Amino acid sequence: MEDASTPARPGPAGPPFSTWARRFLIVGHKARTDGDFNLKDVPGTSGRLDVLARCLTTGLLISNGIRKDTAVYLLLRGPPGPMKVLRFDGASLKNLNPDERSAATLVQAASRVPVGPGGWLEVATGIAVALADEALFKAEFSDLTRVILSEGGEDLDRAAFEKAVVILGGHTDVDEADLRLLRAGDAVRIRLGPLSLHADQCVTVVHHVIDSKVGRKGGSAALKLLGG
Amino acid sequence: MEDASTPARPGPAGPPFSTWARRFLIVGHKARTDGDFNLKDVPGTSGRLDVLARCLTTGLLISNGIRKDTAVYLLLRGPPGPMKVLRFDGASLKNLNPDERSAATLVQAASRVPVGPGGWLEVATGIAVALADEALFKAEFSDLTRVILSEGGEDLDRAAFEKAVVILGGHTDVDEADLRLLRAGDAVRIRLGPLSLHADQCVTVVHHVIDSKVGRKGGSAALKLLGG
Repeated sequence: MEDASTPARPGPAGPPFSTWARRFLIVGHKARTDGDFNLKDVPGTSGRLDVLARCLTTGLLISNGIRKDTAVYLLLRGPPGPMKVLRFDGASLKNLNPDERSAATLVQAASRVPVGPGGWLEVATGIAVALADEALFKAEFSDLTRVILSEGGEDLDRAAFEKAVVILGGHTDVDEADLRLLRAGDAVRIRLGPLSLHADQCVTVVHHVIDSKVGRKGGSAALKLLGG
Repeated sequence: MEDASTPARPGPAGPPFSTWARRFLIVGHKARTDGDFNLKDVPGTSGRLDVLARCLTTGLLISNGIRKDTAVYLLLRGPPGPMKVLRFDGASLKNLNPDERSAATLVQAASRVPVGPGGWLEVATGIAVALADEALFKAEFSDLTRVILSEGGEDLDRAAFEKAVVILGGHTDVDEADLRLLRAGDAVRIRLGPLSLHADQCVTVVHHVIDSKVGRKGGSAALKLLGG
């Protein structure tokens, strides 16, 4: 699945891959939009982008592989604005390591690239950035059910994750402004269990639930094995 | 459950809490035993203690709380030796934040304290260190089933996690030397699903499986909520 024609430098991004069977969107209510934070103290300087970095990692990586069928969206709603969304594409992403600093570095580099109106801009292979507005999400998630992970939601049901984008708050819960932006007013609300987990733990559990359903064969087909 | 009498300075640690319903032991085959690594590059300088740090975090933390009923053991088998094991006690641990650097800092500080024969030494509240040998694990896990997470294991069965210590490799699989050391020759082998996950993802999934069984009431009782 390596694609030598993927542009190495910033350029317009293509339409979303039809192969993303799994999509996660994590909202960073305080997350800086300009990458101006210190990698030595991500929790204290970035508006809790450490939470989003962990979601990115666990959303896309498994042991020695990347989940090709998954896209992770990080919604940055913090200062200085305007709001941005970063999209990480498991089918083509190359340089994600499992440590948190690696993910935070990718997020920092992506959010530093200036972006204007007009949709997705591919800023590195497998990483696209866009200004976040309702029109973008309407197009991006047009035929997908919005599933919000919430303590007050209904009991876990695997079927809810089919043709869906799973939305969750990073450090704080999804709010009314998120629902409007993501056109998620009629979202399905699901609770994963009796306890309130960290966002990255939620992502891991959702993958596990879907993996268990798909089984070994389907799972393997959706993986890209890493070298080494 | 706060215990003001817990010694703040190094001293002998008491017997293991009988309240640890869940125990995880993660093996770091290359993990440095002396804390001599760079927090700016934990994956590259510590023998992959980043993997163990992530297991520690997800093993003990949930959203705004610590799992009081859980202990996480990190087995350090790397240079310079001798082998050590660090024990993190959810019932009394105080200073664990969800970011990876925070966990790596705790691991570094704990593994820097010189430790001799004679069992557990409490090096900070909720953190004990010991030289790792068969006698230690015989006493520590005396009545517990050894459950090893393994791709070649049997399908997931919740019951396997009762009165058990869950053993998994960090960056590399559990080997024969681990089995001898941990007296795990007759361990139960369990696979969590069709894919090979990262160690920290495995810990998250095991917790989820047990949480789902315990239900809301039991889960809440086993938590310590954090301030703020």
